[in-house]
Amino acid sequence: MIIEQIDAPLAGSLLPTLTGNYYTSHDIFVQEQELIFEQMWFCVLRASDIPGSGDYQTVQVGRESLIVSRNRRKEIRAFYNVCRHRGMKICAEPSGTGKRSFQCGYHAWTYDLDGKLIAAPNLTKMPDIDRDDFGLRTVHVREWLGYVWISLADEPPSFDDTVLAEVTTRLGVVENLDHYEVDTLAVGKRVTYEVNANWKLIIENFMECYHCATIHPELTEVQPEFADGLAAQVFVNHGAEFGSDIKGFTIDGSPGVALLPGIDPDQNRKYYAITVKPQVFINMVPDHVIFHRMFPVSADKTIVVCDWLYLPSVVESGVDLTKSVELFNRVNLQDFEACELTQPNMSSKVYEKGGVLVPAEHHITLFHEWVLGMLGHDGASVGE
Amino acid sequence: MIIEQIDAPLAGSLLPTLTGNYYTSHDIFVQEQELIFEQMWFCVLRASDIPGSGDYQTVQVGRESLIVSRNRRKEIRAFYNVCRHRGMKICAEPSGTGKRSFQCGYHAWTYDLDGKLIAAPNLTKMPDIDRDDFGLRTVHVREWLGYVWISLADEPPSFDDTVLAEVTTRLGVVENLDHYEVDTLAVGKRVTYEVNANWKLIIENFMECYHCATIHPELTEVQPEFADGLAAQVFVNHGAEFGSDIKGFTIDGSPGVALLPGIDPDQNRKYYAITVKPQVFINMVPDHVIFHRMFPVSADKTIVVCDWLYLPSVVESGVDLTKSVELFNRVNLQDFEACELTQPNMSSKVYEKGGVLVPAEHHITLFHEWVLGMLGHDGASVGE
Amino acid sequence: MIIEQIDAPLAGSLLPTLTGNYYTSHDIFVQEQELIFEQMWFCVLRASDIPGSGDYQTVQVGRESLIVSRNRRKEIRAFYNVCRHRGMKICAEPSGTGKRSFQCGYHAWTYDLDGKLIAAPNLTKMPDIDRDDFGLRTVHVREWLGYVWISLADEPPSFDDTVLAEVTTRLGVVENLDHYEVDTLAVGKRVTYEVNANWKLIIENFMECYHCATIHPELTEVQPEFADGLAAQVFVNHGAEFGSDIKGFTIDGSPGVALLPGIDPDQNRKYYAITVKPQVFINMVPDHVIFHRMFPVSADKTIVVCDWLYLPSVVESGVDLTKSVELFNRVNLQDFEACELTQPNMSSKVYEKGGVLVPAEHHITLFHEWVLGMLGHDGASVGE
Repeated sequence: MIIEQIDAPLAGSLLPTLTGNYYTSHDIFVQEQELIFEQMWFCVLRASDIPGSGDYQTVQVGRESLIVSRNRRKEIRAFYNVCRHRGMKICAEPSGTGKRSFQCGYHAWTYDLDGKLIAAPNLTKMPDIDRDDFGLRTVHVREWLGYVWISLADEPPSFDDTVLAEVTTRLGVVENLDHYEVDTLAVGKRVTYEVNANWKLIIENFMECYHCATIHPELTEVQPEFADGLAAQVFVNHGAEFGSDIKGFTIDGSPGVALLPGIDPDQNRKYYAITVKPQVFINMVPDHVIFHRMFPVSADKTIVVCDWLYLPSVVESGVDLTKSVELFNRVNLQDFEACELTQPNMSSKVYEKGGVLVPAEHHITLFHEWVLGMLGHDGASVGE
Repeated sequence: MIIEQIDAPLAGSLLPTLTGNYYTSHDIFVQEQELIFEQMWFCVLRASDIPGSGDYQTVQVGRESLIVSRNRRKEIRAFYNVCRHRGMKICAEPSGTGKRSFQCGYHAWTYDLDGKLIAAPNLTKMPDIDRDDFGLRTVHVREWLGYVWISLADEPPSFDDTVLAEVTTRLGVVENLDHYEVDTLAVGKRVTYEVNANWKLIIENFMECYHCATIHPELTEVQPEFADGLAAQVFVNHGAEFGSDIKGFTIDGSPGVALLPGIDPDQNRKYYAITVKPQVFINMVPDHVIFHRMFPVSADKTIVVCDWLYLPSVVESGVDLTKSVELFNRVNLQDFEACELTQPNMSSKVYEKGGVLVPAEHHITLFHEWVLGMLGHDGASVGE
Repeated sequence: MIIEQIDAPLAGSLLPTLTGNYYTSHDIFVQEQELIFEQMWFCVLRASDIPGSGDYQTVQVGRESLIVSRNRRKEIRAFYNVCRHRGMKICAEPSGTGKRSFQCGYHAWTYDLDGKLIAAPNLTKMPDIDRDDFGLRTVHVREWLGYVWISLADEPPSFDDTVLAEVTTRLGVVENLDHYEVDTLAVGKRVTYEVNANWKLIIENFMECYHCATIHPELTEVQPEFADGLAAQVFVNHGAEFGSDIKGFTIDGSPGVALLPGIDPDQNRKYYAITVKPQVFINMVPDHVIFHRMFPVSADKTIVVCDWLYLPSVVESGVDLTKSVELFNRVNLQDFEACELTQPNMSSKVYEKGGVLVPAEHHITLFHEWVLGMLGHDGASVGE
């Protein structure tokens, strides 16, 4: 899976991008909802957001509103937020705590925390209602890295062959991520961004560092090799090293907080990044992990939720995380502005056949081919 | 027209609803505009809203803006609000009083109160302008219950076979409504609601009372039988009786105002409801009538105007109507919130084949079959 | 090109207009963007808006964002505002001054003021990038009357046969416009209007004066012949004469400012108007020129930018231009309100086959035929 020889990525020829319509067409976005977001494993929330039995959040995946909650045994369950009777939203609020059951506010059909229909007015007089058949429709759930991943597919893809394979591709082995013990960390900060750009522009931006010297002065100060334009993601298990005078992954290079105890000595003073298609970015530095979830809303709008994860003891101590958070918050704002200034031109005649990828961006071609494959557009080659 | 035996409606099997797309599709909404709202008798305003000659209101029916006014003989007339010359809106304001004629603000083409073209610059030099042919295009008008009903159809449907038949179906004979002398009443209160839901959800909600126990605590307090889930509309000429300790149809069961003198003794202490498809609800209680007009705006938006009608002497007396109005105002708000929480799920995969109607809702099937028939979708059976 | 005999225009028969869908259809608007606005000479800005080398403005023509600027030799150049690499907007701001080059804010691809690619990270290592081929895509530019006109066509239409021919049609010879020396004038006032109407309604409105008596009391006071309903545009080189008690083209007929020195004695005390399809109006009076540029945004929205141009000495003197500007500002507001009250009815059933043109408006038929011809809708005759 190494795209280029290590001495090659800065030189050579150009490759085409996707054509402009892939970033603007409502029809293609609907295909992406149906064939990508409503099929693949999709990361919806942090498990600690719903700590207790009957705690819930509602989330939007593709075109669907879902309830993610925990049953009496505190196991995570996810349901379509749709009453099986007349279709009203079971949960109208974005979150809630400690429910004993889910009751529809319209006709009081009531479901237990595993989704089974347990009560409804006159239910006993309606013999042909099977309480399981008329339960809330469930979706597949996985917990990994302390996050809840769901799949709306009847038969979800293999978690190993999709999510975990992304980690292997980047880090060689999943163990290199395990060292960060991401599931044990606490959320020190969460920022939600509304980005007026197609989700694929955000992924492409995240995958390459050819733009780093131009728009990320603070980041390239911390990681000088980024000024050369090569993303850490170009090479297997490559981490971008901190500059010699840099004390921590902070906005001004000042010291960070307590190191994550499990990381390998080789992982200290380095930044790693993983793109988990279709909507997660994982960024690892020695003292924290920055975790992005994207929620594509339309062809030209994407919500991005970004968590900064630290050791629980760090978060509990109340130590000032401002400088730590601000580095990647600024990177996010810089990246999203670039995406927003790119989005409107996707409909230009000049971009009708797409743009070009320079050698340092060639690995984005793999993403484009993946998109076309998922949409069954294999006949259409990139750039045509 | 009795859908169920009186002992049956609470028990039995399930029926399907319309499929979700009927509540979300713009194309189907356009068909409804063309084949339902722009064809049937459509109730636009209360005749007393335009008391005098040349008083007018503009109203929106389907895709058309209309002027409803009175001519010199105070007869009601309705016109398309479109100048026959270059198409400008004749009346730009929502209402006005005492006009002698309608003059277009663009080129001064002028029409009399019957719509005839009576003046225009250079008109006498243009011999091929027939002043009737180039008059404002008129629409059919009926006055009934003190309301103005119009039809945009070239040949309107029979008023008897449509509007009045709805009354007969519910009350057995139209005389049972005549007793309320609705045309003689005065508007004590008018409230306009903007509801983010398809008009059919609002009708379905109005037709059934399976939801009453859940969302209408004040209403079921006044009419205890509603707590059982059976709408008054299920049985011919059935009125829902007030609870024994209830003194009037008010938010707290306190006494109402002066009884309507014409009602039958059997109609005292009872609530009756009629759905007049496609957009009117009539609610009768002993001391007032509550009259809803719906103006569907789009597949997911409907304006509802609700009048509370009392004896003119009651309105003139200035007696406090707050408690009287507040009962159904609260019912409206409760119902419309339920519709608004149902609307977004109409596009869910879970509702692709629709939901289910319990026995107490089975009469809604007749409404669904009517919709499909009006749209010429008879091939498509409900629930498929 | 005289449409009617001079004694005819107030009498006679009616002609049809375009059908309503030409003013509401998104599809037809897209055709207009492709075949009219993105093909013809389109007036974008006043040359004095970008006086110096490297000064620029961004403008929207059809579906495209463009940069209009001056190179080192102060020659005007225009480019698509699209980086040739990944498509970001080169200029994110609406205007700027004194740039030495255009650098994309995303990956620092840099173009000189003639659009040539002159720098990019690692550019020297990418031998297959031809710096001309990967330059900013240029568009054709003309300067005339002190305005910049551009064409996005690969082969623009003849300026003589389109823009100048409009002047000849109206004034007989271009020299009759040359006398005003429009290119030497200074902008005394600029007003931008957002009009919720189709661009063709605005043109039709400008072409006829049958509405003048109704909506332009101030204008008909200054030019009494307009009260008869005949636009100056109906006759070749006809100027509408000021009323005998009128001292200048001002809101109250009070004296204007210094006369334009080059005008013909015959042009004094007269108003002339030219429609330069598809988006410019030129109005000439003895002491100033009023110049409209339209930027169609959608089928029902148009931005209009109006300049009031005076002798530079007048503008520099700081003399109060309020009364001078207010006359046509008021005319604009009156016209645009009429267009906005016409637009909604273009979708009415009553306007399905269009409206009618009275004799004084018959010359608008030429505009309608031109539109149909440009769109290749010749089969569809006006009014069907």
